[in-house]
Amino acid sequence: MKIQNLTNNITLKRPLESGNEEQLQTVREVLANVRQNGDAAVKGYGAKWDGVLLNELRVSPEEMSEAVSSMDAQLVEDLKEAALNIRAYHDKQKRQGYQLNLENNSWLGQRITALASVGLYVPGGSAAYPSSVLMNVIPAQVAGVERIVLVSPPGKDGKLPAAVLTAASILGITEIYKIGGAQAIGALAYGTESIQAVDKITGPGNIFVALAKREVFGEVAIDMIAGPSEIAIIADENAYADEIAADLLSQAEHDPMACAILVTTSERFAEEVAEEVENQLTSLPREAIARKAIENFGSIYIAETLAEAVQAINQLAPEHLEIVTDNAEAVAEQIRNAGAIFIGRYSSEPVGDYFAGTNHVLPTNSTARFASGLNVDDFIKKTSVVYYTKETWAQNSPKIARLARLEGLEAHARAVESRGWDKGDESSGSN
Amino acid sequence: MKIQNLTNNITLKRPLESGNEEQLQTVREVLANVRQNGDAAVKGYGAKWDGVLLNELRVSPEEMSEAVSSMDAQLVEDLKEAALNIRAYHDKQKRQGYQLNLENNSWLGQRITALASVGLYVPGGSAAYPSSVLMNVIPAQVAGVERIVLVSPPGKDGKLPAAVLTAASILGITEIYKIGGAQAIGALAYGTESIQAVDKITGPGNIFVALAKREVFGEVAIDMIAGPSEIAIIADENAYADEIAADLLSQAEHDPMACAILVTTSERFAEEVAEEVENQLTSLPREAIARKAIENFGSIYIAETLAEAVQAINQLAPEHLEIVTDNAEAVAEQIRNAGAIFIGRYSSEPVGDYFAGTNHVLPTNSTARFASGLNVDDFIKKTSVVYYTKETWAQNSPKIARLARLEGLEAHARAVESRGWDKGDESSGSN
Repeated sequence: MKIQNLTNNITLKRPLESGNEEQLQTVREVLANVRQNGDAAVKGYGAKWDGVLLNELRVSPEEMSEAVSSMDAQLVEDLKEAALNIRAYHDKQKRQGYQLNLENNSWLGQRITALASVGLYVPGGSAAYPSSVLMNVIPAQVAGVERIVLVSPPGKDGKLPAAVLTAASILGITEIYKIGGAQAIGALAYGTESIQAVDKITGPGNIFVALAKREVFGEVAIDMIAGPSEIAIIADENAYADEIAADLLSQAEHDPMACAILVTTSERFAEEVAEEVENQLTSLPREAIARKAIENFGSIYIAETLAEAVQAINQLAPEHLEIVTDNAEAVAEQIRNAGAIFIGRYSSEPVGDYFAGTNHVLPTNSTARFASGLNVDDFIKKTSVVYYTKETWAQNSPKIARLARLEGLEAHARAVESRGWDKGDESSGSN
Repeated sequence: MKIQNLTNNITLKRPLESGNEEQLQTVREVLANVRQNGDAAVKGYGAKWDGVLLNELRVSPEEMSEAVSSMDAQLVEDLKEAALNIRAYHDKQKRQGYQLNLENNSWLGQRITALASVGLYVPGGSAAYPSSVLMNVIPAQVAGVERIVLVSPPGKDGKLPAAVLTAASILGITEIYKIGGAQAIGALAYGTESIQAVDKITGPGNIFVALAKREVFGEVAIDMIAGPSEIAIIADENAYADEIAADLLSQAEHDPMACAILVTTSERFAEEVAEEVENQLTSLPREAIARKAIENFGSIYIAETLAEAVQAINQLAPEHLEIVTDNAEAVAEQIRNAGAIFIGRYSSEPVGDYFAGTNHVLPTNSTARFASGLNVDDFIKKTSVVYYTKETWAQNSPKIARLARLEGLEAHARAVESRGWDKGDESSGSN
């Protein structure tokens, strides 16, 4: 792992995979076909890309119970406990609207409404990601979304992983379709004969899924397009090199494009960590992936002072930040830009990936300067409400008309002025 | 204005102006040039498109005070009162983070941080839009954004409209640049010698501005890309036809693509409104624009029942909704999808455009199903915080490691397990 002095121009930005023209064309074809031909198109693409032609896209109650009973009981308990923790953390994000009373019985309001329906994409492939189910579904449930749909590409056996179905079952989710890729995004955005369209689509996926989400954006809402994962760690010489190395590798194993950065005030510690990373790499099942990430996007920076390290982190705005120093809480107070902060030796980043309760869907690629992790607000919307009585109108309509005319919008002025006193006060809507 | 019976497939969706290939190429060239050549590029494009070559891009204190003193004193008072109202409404949107205490002194937190800097684009051209300044700046100020920058294209005299500068002055905004078009978006996104980059860009603009915002998205945050304005009105036979017609026209005068829809339970009333619209149209300064909008995107629908009208509105999800019926408040309770709701005869929609206090930046094109008007949340971000003590770690690390291994992520499991009891408890970060 490279060791270098901290400078002003460090970055964790990597070129985002934006897809090539051919992939985009494919996605557009798929979406148009799904829009026009519905289930038939979705099933056809499933046969082609997932290697299985399904008669019935929806997971049956029998499949669900089979999956749950096939799971290791301890793991079911672990998932349940994680779900409880995630719900407890997100419950605090629930919001209420408000009313602002004005003079003369007029009032303004803000109303909070849950989205009516959301679709969650759960990636398939070789691994199962039950944690994605928990992290996407629970905030939507806390928000009060009535209809939550899961989609995920099946294996060649036409089934979804037991762990994914078990996580869904724990949360009471029953509308699950065995579809993936751009065709799943199309089905969620436009609807088909058997799948009703949703208002918002969340969840990670491959480049085809990401491109499809971008294409349907506007028609439906989407969550962020996530980039490869990142970890940044601030550690001083009292931290343990083997632990910091393990944490750097936990992100590196995600993706050859993942980024792992340590900023430390100790040159000796930097060298120890570099050595530990090399040692631990060789015994990792996903060594090849992690090694590429560390070689290309791994760095250890030596900072002169802790203040300098903090400044560098605020510039990087990493997805995950660990602080393993003396007075780690005080250091955390100085961090302005990070998706999630893990304080102290015992808050290793995977604690938040799976279990603590915070969300693991977090802003990447320095967007933590302005973006937030997935949260309950992502599943609600706000409507403003204006109620003016006759008295408030009478008092203010000349001002409103003047402001409208200042902008050259005469019809706006006339609309406000059109409310006449001479047409009687007891007309409809004057209450 | 067309009168027709309400059916299930009404829509207010219009084709969004997405720009042609040539416009996109122009925007990309401009952005690349600004990125590389900074101020020189911005000034060059200003000379080309705004017709004035500026030495100094920033508005001087002298220009500001000149503008303010040239304004009609009554209008300054009106703008000040509007600003107070807008601030009072948005103040209620301020949020606090929270802490969730766990067993064994562990805790989770959500931290709310204002964005560090935002740039607001104020459109130029023939008219001045001081209300855009108020509606974009005030939520950012309430959020606590430290640096708020205004950009707007100057007239051929090299000046900005006095009304825009006055609105800025009322709000205490002093960093204002006389730049517009894609080059202004480039300057805000990448920074130049004289303009520091911002974290988020908001505000409406022409197609070049919209395309440029889409291009820089990811590098910085942007607000929604707004479509043409819309109004939908539910009115019964007790409403006044001249008032409803005036309100329909107040949106129609914005844009030939604007949409104005009335849903009413009374055929007689429908006919009266259609006649009034025609009468009022002929005397409007912006008749040509309003007439196009009414002809192409104006409709009066006859509903059998009020319930049917409500259902139609929830399907349309209009930007603005007026309810002018008996028991209008009760009807409003049944509305799920609308950007803003105006209740009763005296809450004409321009009341909210200029003065009442709610925001006039609202979701268009049916996106009110899932999107909200501009609000304080658009200028903050949330960071999650995890603090686990040794005890909490010890209790939960086996569970976390099992969940990581279930997903095939061995390095995640090892990171959590790496925290050893045998290395001493008093190490750094263990507090």
